[in-house]
Amino acid sequence: MMNTTSNNVVWHEHIVTPSDLEALHQHKGLTIWFTGLSASGKSTLANALAAELHQRKVSTFVLDGDNIRHGLNKDLGFSPKDREENIRRIGEVAKLFTAAGIVNMTAFISPYASDRLMARNLQPERFAEVFCDASLDVCEQRDPKGMYKKARAGLIKQFTGLDAPYEPPPNPEIHLRTDRQSIDECIKIVIDWLEEHGIISSLPQQRKEMAMAL
Amino acid sequence: MMNTTSNNVVWHEHIVTPSDLEALHQHKGLTIWFTGLSASGKSTLANALAAELHQRKVSTFVLDGDNIRHGLNKDLGFSPKDREENIRRIGEVAKLFTAAGIVNMTAFISPYASDRLMARNLQPERFAEVFCDASLDVCEQRDPKGMYKKARAGLIKQFTGLDAPYEPPPNPEIHLRTDRQSIDECIKIVIDWLEEHGIISSLPQQRKEMAMAL
Repeated sequence: MMNTTSNNVVWHEHIVTPSDLEALHQHKGLTIWFTGLSASGKSTLANALAAELHQRKVSTFVLDGDNIRHGLNKDLGFSPKDREENIRRIGEVAKLFTAAGIVNMTAFISPYASDRLMARNLQPERFAEVFCDASLDVCEQRDPKGMYKKARAGLIKQFTGLDAPYEPPPNPEIHLRTDRQSIDECIKIVIDWLEEHGIISSLPQQRKEMAMAL
Repeated sequence: MMNTTSNNVVWHEHIVTPSDLEALHQHKGLTIWFTGLSASGKSTLANALAAELHQRKVSTFVLDGDNIRHGLNKDLGFSPKDREENIRRIGEVAKLFTAAGIVNMTAFISPYASDRLMARNLQPERFAEVFCDASLDVCEQRDPKGMYKKARAGLIKQFTGLDAPYEPPPNPEIHLRTDRQSIDECIKIVIDWLEEHGIISSLPQQRKEMAMAL
């Protein structure tokens, strides 16, 4: 029969901490928060970064519209209050993934500086804001999903960059010029930052294991 | 300059899938949903299971009141509608962790069969319900946080097992008698189930790596 006193002892002895999970994964947990206009490259870069990190045996996860808007946040619309709640929940989930020792990427327009600050303040030591900076003209020319076209036609209201504001981050950890830099260049900038800040090892993990074995 | 067409190609080529993450972690992702009365052992067992799995180099994460009620779900109260939304969000977050190739444990009373079914239906192939079954008498005797005492004194209303119902799972994947079985016995039952269902390897991962190297 389970004994309460010994249960408590076991529980405290055995709890797996974020540090334990980081040691298992051999890298730190971090939220990499991509922000920028629609079609500025957020999802593309978040997924390309995840792929590069995966090759380096880093545990990753991408939070984006596909897995959030149709799931956790499917009850939310696009009113100012709902937009804020959308970002709040994403920030909270990102924090959980960081606590799980995962390098997690979020790819949402997140146009308001105050909402991004709220997400940052949930885990200020483990939050890197990546500004995907491309001019409205370039984004509108790309328009891969035809969203700008619909917005110009009045079919979408409150579209960021047109009739709703985008507040650029004044001081992001990383500022990418996605209208000038290639995907590979952008990824290299982020990877270098992660190495410099000790989030991931500068040696590929396999090589590190071999080096430790020698 | 990023080209939209090539971006799309890169994106599709490079996306990291749940299977990729499972291959990296060398085990499958799964939600292990602990349910039972207050003081039935849910959190104790979820954390002890995480510790045992961690020793086996399994990537784990525990979702419980500590990291959910004060974070993602801090806007929710205890009305029937809020309780349902509480479980819905936990189910959605658990699904994300499964997609990240993590063995995730949830430790919430989750008294209503319909709410648990909703969580299960989000990922029916990756959901194992663990019924922590102990009599009300035993749970009330344990009462580690003094919650039953407060509820009996009328200080907490709608307390599960007293003036609010608990609907036992009719068909859980695992049924633990936490008033009769020790923690070690309970953990062994769950570990055996995970091995039998191919979620984790029956060989400790270190030994598996050694075996592959020989």
